[in-house]
Amino acid sequence: MSRPWEKKSSRYVAHYRIFHLREDICVSPRNGHEMPAYVLETRDWINIIPLTPDREVVMVHQYRFGTEEMSLEIPGGLADPGDGSMLEAARRELREETGYDSEEVIKLGAVRPNPAILNNTCHLFLAKNAVLKYEQSLDDGEDIRVELVPLSRIPQLIQEGKIVHSLVLNAFYLFDLLQRER
Amino acid sequence: MSRPWEKKSSRYVAHYRIFHLREDICVSPRNGHEMPAYVLETRDWINIIPLTPDREVVMVHQYRFGTEEMSLEIPGGLADPGDGSMLEAARRELREETGYDSEEVIKLGAVRPNPAILNNTCHLFLAKNAVLKYEQSLDDGEDIRVELVPLSRIPQLIQEGKIVHSLVLNAFYLFDLLQRER
Repeated sequence: MSRPWEKKSSRYVAHYRIFHLREDICVSPRNGHEMPAYVLETRDWINIIPLTPDREVVMVHQYRFGTEEMSLEIPGGLADPGDGSMLEAARRELREETGYDSEEVIKLGAVRPNPAILNNTCHLFLAKNAVLKYEQSLDDGEDIRVELVPLSRIPQLIQEGKIVHSLVLNAFYLFDLLQRER
Repeated sequence: MSRPWEKKSSRYVAHYRIFHLREDICVSPRNGHEMPAYVLETRDWINIIPLTPDREVVMVHQYRFGTEEMSLEIPGGLADPGDGSMLEAARRELREETGYDSEEVIKLGAVRPNPAILNNTCHLFLAKNAVLKYEQSLDDGEDIRVELVPLSRIPQLIQEGKIVHSLVLNAFYLFDLLQRER
């Protein structure tokens, strides 16, 4: 009981700028019924908690097109094909969105943003001793205000619904678990 | 700086079983440039941590079509139009996927699964004193094995990458923060 399904066929239904939509015909191991499954194929994502020497988190405040709301987040985005590694992708996003950089980036873990309909992974990082070194470098689709938030205030901001991005919460949870280990 | 973007126009590009794809033409408040934003419109989601009187979590083990992997999760899914409330939707998913029920369901919070490309919210619940009352009631697309996991083991399973669903981690984090308040 509860095994992988057989994929009988697979085809692309549509291609968009940020993802490809695939339809897989899958066979239930429980009853043999066939069912179409829709999968959004997209590149892996990264995000990163930049922590200053004063234990402040370098957060970004920006408008989000999906929710049509302003959102308080940590830096993050799509890994680029040109990024050498997920860690480099995270460090690039940190530099571009905030101008901060760090020589001490560690991986916190990886999660599946939505195993039901997305094929990708989000890789979560922590940048220790992050310091302001560069100018922000925003593309046309970005308009980002940097905001320093004491790390100690993060749980309250989450509980009050001021930080609501699922993947941002994941990074703070994994960081929290890591700190408790020590 | 960092304000909402003006939506100049909006049209549906495609309709699929689980979402509608919308293209919005948005105007940057920073530089006046127009940019298309793709938004997946979908119903709200719910998930629920069912906790037995022995402090075991009633988890579900199932195959996921997006990641093409087996996944260890808590019950959850789409809210149905017929559900009276998000809490009722959560309790229905709990009953259908596991056969467990609870009279003590409380809301842990709500998150945005992906503010960049999804318009919806995921509502997170806790079911205290969950007990087995019914048979599982699975639809054709489901093949679920119930697994009881001691609550105390959850952080380790997350750190080891055995629980990877972003929204499942969110529920455990909010529950964790709630417990620390007390």
